[in-house]
Amino acid sequence: MTNTTVTDTIHTNAEAGDVEAARTEAGGSTVAAYAAPAPKAPLERTTVPRRALGAHDILIDIAYAGICHSDIHQVAEDWGPGIFPMVPGHEIAGVVGEVGPEVTRWAVGDRVGVGCFVDSCRECDSCRAGLQQYCTGGSGAVFTYNAVGRDGAPTYGGYARQLVVDENYALRIPGALPLDVAAPLLCAGITLYSPLTRWGAGPGRKVAIVGLGGLGHLGVKIARAKGAEVTVLSQSLRKREDGLKLGAHDYRATSDPATFTELAGTFDLIVNTVSADLDLSGYLGLLRTDGTLVQVGAPEKPVSINAHALLVGRRSLAGSMIGGLPETQEMLDFCAEHGIGAEIELIRAEQINEAYDRVLASDVRYRFVIDTATI
Amino acid sequence: MTNTTVTDTIHTNAEAGDVEAARTEAGGSTVAAYAAPAPKAPLERTTVPRRALGAHDILIDIAYAGICHSDIHQVAEDWGPGIFPMVPGHEIAGVVGEVGPEVTRWAVGDRVGVGCFVDSCRECDSCRAGLQQYCTGGSGAVFTYNAVGRDGAPTYGGYARQLVVDENYALRIPGALPLDVAAPLLCAGITLYSPLTRWGAGPGRKVAIVGLGGLGHLGVKIARAKGAEVTVLSQSLRKREDGLKLGAHDYRATSDPATFTELAGTFDLIVNTVSADLDLSGYLGLLRTDGTLVQVGAPEKPVSINAHALLVGRRSLAGSMIGGLPETQEMLDFCAEHGIGAEIELIRAEQINEAYDRVLASDVRYRFVIDTATI
Repeated sequence: MTNTTVTDTIHTNAEAGDVEAARTEAGGSTVAAYAAPAPKAPLERTTVPRRALGAHDILIDIAYAGICHSDIHQVAEDWGPGIFPMVPGHEIAGVVGEVGPEVTRWAVGDRVGVGCFVDSCRECDSCRAGLQQYCTGGSGAVFTYNAVGRDGAPTYGGYARQLVVDENYALRIPGALPLDVAAPLLCAGITLYSPLTRWGAGPGRKVAIVGLGGLGHLGVKIARAKGAEVTVLSQSLRKREDGLKLGAHDYRATSDPATFTELAGTFDLIVNTVSADLDLSGYLGLLRTDGTLVQVGAPEKPVSINAHALLVGRRSLAGSMIGGLPETQEMLDFCAEHGIGAEIELIRAEQINEAYDRVLASDVRYRFVIDTATI
Repeated sequence: MTNTTVTDTIHTNAEAGDVEAARTEAGGSTVAAYAAPAPKAPLERTTVPRRALGAHDILIDIAYAGICHSDIHQVAEDWGPGIFPMVPGHEIAGVVGEVGPEVTRWAVGDRVGVGCFVDSCRECDSCRAGLQQYCTGGSGAVFTYNAVGRDGAPTYGGYARQLVVDENYALRIPGALPLDVAAPLLCAGITLYSPLTRWGAGPGRKVAIVGLGGLGHLGVKIARAKGAEVTVLSQSLRKREDGLKLGAHDYRATSDPATFTELAGTFDLIVNTVSADLDLSGYLGLLRTDGTLVQVGAPEKPVSINAHALLVGRRSLAGSMIGGLPETQEMLDFCAEHGIGAEIELIRAEQINEAYDRVLASDVRYRFVIDTATI
C-alpha cells in the first residue's frame, strides 16, 4: 500500500436497497448481519436491531470487518457463556452515514473505525487516563459484541451492514489507509502497538515477536517502523521469507533448542501473540536485564513459570489488552504515516464459516476481512 | 534508634588475642568462623583462610553478621549442591582493619558493610549500569559465600571474625546507623529498597508488603519513609500491632477471603517477600491498572498464574534480586537519614543453630544478628 489517499467503494444499505435495513417503530433500525444463532453453530445471515440515533451517536455504514481469533472463541463459548444470536466482529472500518443532533466530532462521509469496545464508564481512573479498555466502573468496558450495553441491550458486532455507536468511541481512519487493510488494525494492530509503545520498542532496542499470525505480522511491521531490531520467534521456519519481507531482521524456530541458548539474554522486549501453552520460563531466559515478556493473548490454562527466571535480571511478565481510545487513534495515524496495513484475504460473507475453519487450521496470511457489502 | 552518630564497640581479632587469626605463609590468614562442615549439618566453630591483601583489597574486622533465610537454604542445599565447609553470612557490618597499598576509597577505622556479592565481571552491561547483582559476565556475580571467586578460591561469608574484599565491593555505613541493626540492611534492606525504588513507592502510591518477616518489616519501614501508603498482607493478624508500629497504615489477613474482595484493584505495587507457594493470581487482582507484583523470593516450585489476571489492567509480575553497589549505598544513606535499622535479636555464635531452628519456625522478630566477637 502507499501513503496516498485511497478512494473507497462503500455499498451503503441505502444503495443496496436492502429492505432489512428498515426503521423500527422506536426509531431504531434492523440491519442485515451474520450471526451465530447458538453456541458453536455456523454463522448465518439474519437481521439485528440497531438503536435509534442518540444525541451523540453516529451511524456507521460498515465497509469491512476483520475476523479475529477471539470471534471464534466467543462463538464457541471458550471463555464463558455467550449472548446469542451473536454477531461477532470488532475490527470495523466504514464511513459515517448519519450523525445525531449533538455530534461534534464527525460529519457524514468521514472514514471511521470501531474496535473492541463501544462504551465505558468514563469516570474511573482508567477511563480518565484514556485507558478505557481497563475500565473498572461497573462491569467494565462495554465490548462491541457479546456484551450488554449501558442501556441494557445486547451489543452486536461488525459482521453487519451498519452500526450505531457513541461518537467518542469511533476512531478516525486517515485517508492514506485503505479501509480493508485498516479494519484489522482496530484490534490486531492496537494489540501490538500498545505494548510495543509502552515498553519502548525503538532504535537500539531488540524486540522479539512470538508467532507470525494475524497479530504477529502487524507486530513485526509496527516494531520495525518504530526503529527496533526485530526478531520473529516462530515454531518453524515455514513463514521465514514472509517474516523477513514484513520487516523482521531475524527469524528463528522455537522448535530448535539452539534458539534458546544462542539468543539467551538478548531481548529488551518479547511480545507473545501465541495463546497456546508455551514454556514461558524459556522465553524469559531470552530477556536482557530489565527485559519484559508481554502476553497479549491469554492461554486457557494457567501459565506456569519459574520465579527464578524473573529474579535473575529483574525481568517482568506482563499482560496487555488492546489499547485505549487515544492510543488507538495514535496507532492509526502511525500506521497511515508508515504505510502499515494488515496483510489480508478479502472474503464474501458466505465464506465466514469456511474462514473460521481456516483460522483454526492457521491457514491464513494473515487476516480474513469480510466485505460487508456481501452480507 | 536515633539519627546521631553511634559509638561502636568492635572486638577486633587483635584485641581478642585470637591465635587462629594468624598469618599464613602466603601472606593470607586463617580466621575464626562458624561453618557447616557438610550439607544440613549443624554449624560449628572452625577456621577458614582469607587471602593476602591485594593492592585494592581491604581487610574488614567483622562486628556483626545477620542470619538470612537463604543461609539456611544454602546449608541445606535446597537450591543445589553447596561448597563445604560453608561459612554463611552476607549481611556483614564491620570496620576496616587494614588496607591494600592502592586502596583509595577506605581508611583504617571506616565503618563498612558487605552484602551478597564480593565481585563481578565489571564489564558486562549490567555491571556497567551498576547492577552487579545481574552480572552476565562469566558465571555472574561472585557471591559472598558458597561460590568460587575469580581467583578460583571458594568464598566464605560473614559468620567469621574477618573478611578480605575488594575495596569496590564494600559499602559505607553512615555514622548514624549502629552496626548491629545495619547488618541486615545489606541483604534484607536492599532486597526491599530496590523494588520499592524501581517501581516508584512514594507519595500518592499504595504499596502492599506481603509477609512481615525479616524482609517485610524493612519493606514497611522503607516504603513508609518513602511516603507511600503502606498495607501489610499477612497470613494472620498475629503481628498486626507490630506492623502498625513499624509504619503500616493498614494490616490485613490473607486467610480472610474478604481481603481479596475489599482490596481488589487497590495497589500500585505489591512486594511479595514470601517464598512459600501463594495464589499469585489472587494477589494480581489486588493491583490497579498498570500495577506490579514483585517477587523478591523464589518459591522452589514453579508458580502458576492466570494470564488473564495480567491482561486485565496491564499488570506485571516481576522479579527483583537484592541491588547493585550504587543502589545499596543509596539505601544505606536513605536508612541513616530516616533512622531505619532492622529490628534485631542479637545472639552469640553458639546460638546460631538454635536461631536457624527458630527462623524455620518463623519465631524471630525480625532478624537474628550474630555478635561475631563471640566466634
